[in-house]
Amino acid sequence: MAGVTIAVDANGADLGPAEVAAGAAIAAVRGVRVLLFGPADELGEVAEGVEVVDAPVSIAKAHEPMAAARSTPEASVVRAVEAVADGRADAFVSGGSTGAALAAGLFRVKRANGIHRPALATPVPVPGHPVTLLDVGANAEVRPEHLVQFAFMGAALVRVVLGVERPRVALLSNGEEAERGTPLVQEAHAALAERAAHAGEALEFVGNVEGNDITAGAADVVVTDGFTGNVAIKLMEGVSQTVLGAIRDRAMASPRAKAGGALLRPALRGLRDELDPEGPGGAYLLGLRRLGVVPHGRFTRYGFSQAILLAARGVSGDIVGRTHEALDAAGALRARPPVDRSAPSPNVT
Amino acid sequence: MAGVTIAVDANGADLGPAEVAAGAAIAAVRGVRVLLFGPADELGEVAEGVEVVDAPVSIAKAHEPMAAARSTPEASVVRAVEAVADGRADAFVSGGSTGAALAAGLFRVKRANGIHRPALATPVPVPGHPVTLLDVGANAEVRPEHLVQFAFMGAALVRVVLGVERPRVALLSNGEEAERGTPLVQEAHAALAERAAHAGEALEFVGNVEGNDITAGAADVVVTDGFTGNVAIKLMEGVSQTVLGAIRDRAMASPRAKAGGALLRPALRGLRDELDPEGPGGAYLLGLRRLGVVPHGRFTRYGFSQAILLAARGVSGDIVGRTHEALDAAGALRARPPVDRSAPSPNVT
Repeated sequence: MAGVTIAVDANGADLGPAEVAAGAAIAAVRGVRVLLFGPADELGEVAEGVEVVDAPVSIAKAHEPMAAARSTPEASVVRAVEAVADGRADAFVSGGSTGAALAAGLFRVKRANGIHRPALATPVPVPGHPVTLLDVGANAEVRPEHLVQFAFMGAALVRVVLGVERPRVALLSNGEEAERGTPLVQEAHAALAERAAHAGEALEFVGNVEGNDITAGAADVVVTDGFTGNVAIKLMEGVSQTVLGAIRDRAMASPRAKAGGALLRPALRGLRDELDPEGPGGAYLLGLRRLGVVPHGRFTRYGFSQAILLAARGVSGDIVGRTHEALDAAGALRARPPVDRSAPSPNVT
Repeated sequence: MAGVTIAVDANGADLGPAEVAAGAAIAAVRGVRVLLFGPADELGEVAEGVEVVDAPVSIAKAHEPMAAARSTPEASVVRAVEAVADGRADAFVSGGSTGAALAAGLFRVKRANGIHRPALATPVPVPGHPVTLLDVGANAEVRPEHLVQFAFMGAALVRVVLGVERPRVALLSNGEEAERGTPLVQEAHAALAERAAHAGEALEFVGNVEGNDITAGAADVVVTDGFTGNVAIKLMEGVSQTVLGAIRDRAMASPRAKAGGALLRPALRGLRDELDPEGPGGAYLLGLRRLGVVPHGRFTRYGFSQAILLAARGVSGDIVGRTHEALDAAGALRARPPVDRSAPSPNVT
């Protein structure tokens, strides 16, 4: 990942800007150059490979992130995204408000041609079957054509990143039958079935899956709106951490259990890592002209370092260019709308 | 539970009607009388305390459950519900189609006065903090006033069943702030905050919770639409079973791990039971004039026996009467609409 520069917003993390700076230092040791935007006097000692740009203004807690990103050019997230738009960095990372990161991305980096809506895509932190879930929070409300495009975006991502040929793509619903779900899901189902019939190797549409199917390997990509997806990904983390915690508690409950726990611990170490929500580093923000990564605000330095490394790997692998090519080849890009030069800002409606 | 009779639909279970009959036999041993509606020639030997009513017609797989329930009076689920309406049984259990059970309930038992929509409420199968989630599948789409009433219904349920004083009720969303979520959730938030301010002991509205908060004990009752709730409850089961399975696999991976697993097993036995999706027996269908219970179609006989026992306990505890009183006391019932005798079927719109 030599030569890759990631612009990182240090504001918005639950543990404060210094924790993000510590994550940047870890990533820098791995060879990633970091431009760190945040309050310079709160970032602690700066590591080699990390360049601090003093940007103390945070909009991570703004009630109207879209408006805040528009009206606050000095905000750290806006400045980080701007560095990517200017070519000073190759991708951005922000663990503050997802809405603000999305808004800044739409204003400064712009939507890629033919993309309806950017979406957040993340691997599901469950062992066994790798599954990519999207949207996990960029769009609380979507239209059927958005879900259809998310299906192709997710499929393109797992083809590029994981090398999955003809990824199996499913829609998340409350039943497997095509007629189950909200009208949104029903319409998306019909449209995706129609599109997938001519999609060749781009994807295989395997229909609806239910919540329990996500962890059962029923699909490589699971598509849903950003409200349901956000609830789902956080719920998965909550359940797996709660179950691990309950096992840990019970393994301390008696001398016999303690002895068993000690013997089992090495075998379970890898599992704990697989279930660690910080391990994947967060979600790819797909659909902009440059790559973004959105870690959780509650991550520790480890999670932020993983987010920066995820962004750097995405740049090295040209995820933006290759997924866009795959979408184009699959005919999944929106037809170019007629140019209307009177419209003030066609990319951010 | 002496003297309680439960009408059970034997159709629709993944393992077939005989599995439901076996569950009925287990419940009968515990003192519940069962009226079992299904294909008499497929139910195997009938246990004492179980009376079979031959009703071979199943609408569990009907594409239009509402229409099927209306047009198929001979369907096993309709006949089971009818037995409750007639007073031959006190509550019904159906593990077939939730839509068909709901439709049959609306047609034959009727909605309780002042209830907008019935909802499915279930305990969350996660250890540590008891949480009741609703709606888990009766209404894929809802309006804000439905979510507000679900909040009071859930609170009344946990007051009656668990004895929780002033239950903490939360709305499931993609962020904790009041302005997060879909317009539906935002409107419900505002309306519920307003109502809760005058609700006294009926409930305490603690605002929005995210997916991971469900397992963290942030609320006693978590309210959502039936689409999101259905995805959530199945996802929780999928994740907890996947994590337990992964631990089991790793505990077999080496002699050392096997020895540890053997020592730990007794301590973990209770946890496995706590996480067993069949343990709670399914969801209460609340808001009708009589009680219904909806187990998963994929349950084994154990799960069906638990469902029947859940229904019987609900009857003994007069959940329907006491939750309705609690809703009335809290002012959470809908104002009685003007009587319109020209409307053909005001309860089932």
